[in-house]
Amino acid sequence: MTHSFAVTTVVGNPKRLSRTLTTAEALAAAVAGPGAGTASFDLAELYRDGIEPPHGGFEHALDRIRAAQVLVVGTPVYKAAYTGLLKLFLDQLPPAALEGTVAVPVTIAASAEHRHLADLQLRPVLAELGASLPVPSLALREDELPELDAHLAKWTGAHLPALAAAARAAEGAAA
Amino acid sequence: MTHSFAVTTVVGNPKRLSRTLTTAEALAAAVAGPGAGTASFDLAELYRDGIEPPHGGFEHALDRIRAAQVLVVGTPVYKAAYTGLLKLFLDQLPPAALEGTVAVPVTIAASAEHRHLADLQLRPVLAELGASLPVPSLALREDELPELDAHLAKWTGAHLPALAAAARAAEGAAA
Amino acid sequence: MTHSFAVTTVVGNPKRLSRTLTTAEALAAAVAGPGAGTASFDLAELYRDGIEPPHGGFEHALDRIRAAQVLVVGTPVYKAAYTGLLKLFLDQLPPAALEGTVAVPVTIAASAEHRHLADLQLRPVLAELGASLPVPSLALREDELPELDAHLAKWTGAHLPALAAAARAAEGAAA
Amino acid sequence: MTHSFAVTTVVGNPKRLSRTLTTAEALAAAVAGPGAGTASFDLAELYRDGIEPPHGGFEHALDRIRAAQVLVVGTPVYKAAYTGLLKLFLDQLPPAALEGTVAVPVTIAASAEHRHLADLQLRPVLAELGASLPVPSLALREDELPELDAHLAKWTGAHLPALAAAARAAEGAAA
Repeated sequence: MTHSFAVTTVVGNPKRLSRTLTTAEALAAAVAGPGAGTASFDLAELYRDGIEPPHGGFEHALDRIRAAQVLVVGTPVYKAAYTGLLKLFLDQLPPAALEGTVAVPVTIAASAEHRHLADLQLRPVLAELGASLPVPSLALREDELPELDAHLAKWTGAHLPALAAAARAAEGAAA
Repeated sequence: MTHSFAVTTVVGNPKRLSRTLTTAEALAAAVAGPGAGTASFDLAELYRDGIEPPHGGFEHALDRIRAAQVLVVGTPVYKAAYTGLLKLFLDQLPPAALEGTVAVPVTIAASAEHRHLADLQLRPVLAELGASLPVPSLALREDELPELDAHLAKWTGAHLPALAAAARAAEGAAA
Repeated sequence: MTHSFAVTTVVGNPKRLSRTLTTAEALAAAVAGPGAGTASFDLAELYRDGIEPPHGGFEHALDRIRAAQVLVVGTPVYKAAYTGLLKLFLDQLPPAALEGTVAVPVTIAASAEHRHLADLQLRPVLAELGASLPVPSLALREDELPELDAHLAKWTGAHLPALAAAARAAEGAAA
Repeated sequence: MTHSFAVTTVVGNPKRLSRTLTTAEALAAAVAGPGAGTASFDLAELYRDGIEPPHGGFEHALDRIRAAQVLVVGTPVYKAAYTGLLKLFLDQLPPAALEGTVAVPVTIAASAEHRHLADLQLRPVLAELGASLPVPSLALREDELPELDAHLAKWTGAHLPALAAAARAAEGAAA
């Protein structure tokens, strides 16, 4: 199946240039397909100088989210949930900002016991913003990251067809 | 848009022939489209004589769930969550029983404060069983039921295209 | 510290005489102290013949819950949550049935990834019923059960003082 | 009952000097009792110039949290959860930073439908940090704030004895 989607990535790891960012961008590339436009926002960079981001930076991220068919949302699991940095950004989005957008969480946990916790808390938040969440999240442990390619291949094999169909349907519904 | 989907409905209201059942079946009919096959299971009936359902009844329900493209899952909000009766049935399903199935929760709450609570708890459970949850649940208050047709029309207008696309994609992926 | 509390145990494992029951009763005995009255209800037994339990059995369980200072609530982790059997019982309790009661969940998970999931879903339900939840749950994996005594000793060492104080306070508040 | 507790308040409303802050501080004063030491941190102030707070400010807040017997944690309900600003602060706390601390969430929701949502998500996070959560949160709607005194009196009447006993027990356990 060939496909090409506009994919935007937002990552809420307080450490800039994190492995969460790398992982989320790798998933975004696999989802976008060849030749597709992607944009990626490292919130540790966006909020570096204060919790009110420079107006231009936030507006740019919001524009790219609105233009995206698929939004990849990356976070490490901190204190049994998604990070505050990610939520800080989501809190500033307008109501229903993600209507017509298909979202895919990417979460990285330090231990098996925390694998599902960010995902459990994040999905209701993204749903509140209007996002459609048609497929399971990519929820990895840190010690699985050296085999990221294999995990990505497994995830895309299982879920990319449904994700692509949902992205097309969302577009059709919004048109 | 014309469509026709095999839709199975499972409702966990401990009271037989409940308004939860009526509501879930109305959504199922709207999703299935004209001429489609539907099946509906009232768990208060299925478990009437014991928590181990008669083998035939449970197996029949499982068969119809496996044959369905869309599963409508109905529950009232009891004690801040879905009902135990619904979960009793889900607990007896084999692992990954809902892979390739698109699920839509229908929840009925007695008060506004409880509107989202069954949904919040139910989605991770359905996801654990492998279901895809591409669209928001139909989450109504009891005092909205007299205007069920209007609420159904609004919900299907907003979400049926994405639901239909997801159901088709799930079928394609399973084929 | 010497203490003596009335402790009631309710366990929602669909298999009678389960290890969840054994574990919850062991915690209850440690909490109750020497000479204290305890009662234990195996819901697989209570609901053996139907989801409407024989009136006498349910009323007896409710009486013992009302007489208890501490309620131990045991469940395996099934499908990423507490069991439907446990919730079926909780659903039948009157509103605010657990006001003045201190509750302690005991959960048994088959894998590390599911360790926290029943607890996360159960606490809001017990809180909705009015229970106080002053201490962390005893959340074990199945493969930790051979060392149950050590886990119990660690848990009671860390949490029994706060639990005992909360039980006394709840009693004082209700008097 | 006379009592006197060291109470620290942390509030994660992105708007400085918010009604969430006022409400949380009013609860803190009622819990602390006459003559007790209280400290209050408005995270909108603490993080005003960047998500890495000035070292001294964060350390001071952490010191006062460690010295507190009771921690009041205030947040508005944003996007179906606690705020990112609050979680940003909690994420920076050391592991187990709240062991021996009794925590009380204070949440303010714009609508009835969101009343319980921040609380549901916040409690597991505070528990992960080691906090004890012995009593229900003070969960108010914005339109209840004009009658804050009455709501506070009702809440303290119902829950202060158990909270005080838990705070004393936590202190005893830590001694």
